[in-house]
Amino acid sequence: MPKIKYMKRALSLAKGGWGETSPNPMVGAVIVRDGKIIGEGYHSRCGMPHAEVEAIRSAKENLSGAEMYVTLEPCNFYGRTPPCTDAIIKSGIRKVYIATLDPNPRVSGGGVKKLRDAGIDVEVGMLENEAKRLNEIYFKNIQEKLPFVIGKAAITLDGFIADTSGNSRWITSESSRKASHMLRALVDGILVGAETVRCDNPRLTTYLVEGKTAIRFVLARHPLEYERYHIFTDGLPTYIITDNPDYPEEGLPDNISLVILSNLSKDILPELWKMNIRSLLVEGGGEVHSFFLENSLYDKMLIFVAPKVIGNGKGMFGNITRRLQNAMEFCIESVDKSGNDAVLTVYKKGKCSQG
Amino acid sequence: MPKIKYMKRALSLAKGGWGETSPNPMVGAVIVRDGKIIGEGYHSRCGMPHAEVEAIRSAKENLSGAEMYVTLEPCNFYGRTPPCTDAIIKSGIRKVYIATLDPNPRVSGGGVKKLRDAGIDVEVGMLENEAKRLNEIYFKNIQEKLPFVIGKAAITLDGFIADTSGNSRWITSESSRKASHMLRALVDGILVGAETVRCDNPRLTTYLVEGKTAIRFVLARHPLEYERYHIFTDGLPTYIITDNPDYPEEGLPDNISLVILSNLSKDILPELWKMNIRSLLVEGGGEVHSFFLENSLYDKMLIFVAPKVIGNGKGMFGNITRRLQNAMEFCIESVDKSGNDAVLTVYKKGKCSQG
Repeated sequence: MPKIKYMKRALSLAKGGWGETSPNPMVGAVIVRDGKIIGEGYHSRCGMPHAEVEAIRSAKENLSGAEMYVTLEPCNFYGRTPPCTDAIIKSGIRKVYIATLDPNPRVSGGGVKKLRDAGIDVEVGMLENEAKRLNEIYFKNIQEKLPFVIGKAAITLDGFIADTSGNSRWITSESSRKASHMLRALVDGILVGAETVRCDNPRLTTYLVEGKTAIRFVLARHPLEYERYHIFTDGLPTYIITDNPDYPEEGLPDNISLVILSNLSKDILPELWKMNIRSLLVEGGGEVHSFFLENSLYDKMLIFVAPKVIGNGKGMFGNITRRLQNAMEFCIESVDKSGNDAVLTVYKKGKCSQG
Repeated sequence: MPKIKYMKRALSLAKGGWGETSPNPMVGAVIVRDGKIIGEGYHSRCGMPHAEVEAIRSAKENLSGAEMYVTLEPCNFYGRTPPCTDAIIKSGIRKVYIATLDPNPRVSGGGVKKLRDAGIDVEVGMLENEAKRLNEIYFKNIQEKLPFVIGKAAITLDGFIADTSGNSRWITSESSRKASHMLRALVDGILVGAETVRCDNPRLTTYLVEGKTAIRFVLARHPLEYERYHIFTDGLPTYIITDNPDYPEEGLPDNISLVILSNLSKDILPELWKMNIRSLLVEGGGEVHSFFLENSLYDKMLIFVAPKVIGNGKGMFGNITRRLQNAMEFCIESVDKSGNDAVLTVYKKGKCSQG
């Protein structure tokens, strides 16, 4: 089925909006006639034209009788921009291939219906799994009204996030660290524990790649010496999240805000949602990873495995202890190379694609 | 380059001799005329005809002017079978593609020369890396006169080979356990530590697949209660290797032999070589893996990673403790899925294929 290559191209175009479209999804569109691509576009950022409109605009010729490949169902309502369905109908396009329906109840099937009512042939489902994965953040946002949470760790071949003295710089290669920075550029928020701040003094910026810096969150029970750490002194906003009702507000630098939650595991995601955080990257350390995992807060884990052995050290989930019969079970979606390292993409059990 | 598909087929045929050819290499051969395969063969076991001769015999037609694809340089000497070069020359084959030269000094280049002297066109190097990997055991045997050693472990996502109570059954899925049994069927010897015998009471047979049972070796400092464990009671040969000069011989069952080595790390591979062990699979536990790794005895590691988290447990290299700056470094050749698990193929640093 060679038509699939056009949808692949549309998916690849969609990633042009990487990290810029939240709370919107990433969408790509390709217009084809006689086996030739005559228009392409993607949604570049929230508020900017949608992919379908960009593709139509980019075409230098009359689109009458052409086919469109689009990674998400075209919208049929007036939002920040006019409905894409109208633009498609007006263009003369005769057939639209849609990778997946929009889960947003304002669209969901309505876009398809509007196109069909206008006499356009519509097929849904080409590369549907890939299209849903691309916008897994958006799908969870719409369906659960909660941020999508990614746990990310760099471990040695024998499973450690740091050596016995707490040193973790650097476990993985620069190419994996760049991939991590790409993740940081994707998400709205990045969270680490106080121990990671103390041990690593991370910047949590995207200095290895181009991209925005997400809002930084630190889980802490007790005040840190704010003046010692980059994330409190670099002037960018950082939030401290705590379940300690007595956490002192005095001494907090101006750019630092305090969020006190009474039930951390239950309240943290709804609270982040209220702050417009649609996606969260959790970068550890072991105590924080254990907390998120035990409370089923991870939608996805990305584990970078470096070909290094240290024998003993700090575990990724060191605050958990389970018998093997009672192990927490997940599924591995894919395994890839990342420079010298391997990277495992892990989901909740039952949430991996087939095959 | 579509011709590569014939060499791929030859490599795939070669694996028909999996675990049966030692100390010979696995070899496959394909004969092609006018884009059609007209003959195929592989070396099925030591003493049986070589792949080239099997392929020539299998052809139902005159081979004059045909081309042969063979995964290793044809031999040019009388061993257990007559020289393959003679059979090829006699067949009328006009061109031979050879994946890699035979490292054996009795052949190495001599096979190619003999073919060329007979007017046959010879090309060497198609899929050379794959062909060398296929026979990595044979290549090390010839070049170093030592067994090829593979360390194999099944670990949780967070790096443990057993939970804190020592339980390791089962970390990985049945499909990974079958892959392990395929490995057992490949090698001449399997080695575990006394602790693994005590905790797991393994059979170390290949009951999940068809295949021979390799000779079993147990590293032990002190006598075990032989009557309690499968590998001592099932009647198949097992060797105990120790560096304890006072290890008592009394009480050893008939099928159990004792090997006392004064310098274990230095003597173990040469001693196994003398016992005609050309390949050894080391299945742990942590103390044994640490010993082999620290003494640079592993040529290759296969690490099966199950999507399970237990937080704490026994590490694969628990007897090692290194700072991160001083980590032992390796390279990851490939990462693959194995049923629900991932499997990492790891070599000594610098020994991975490019790309």
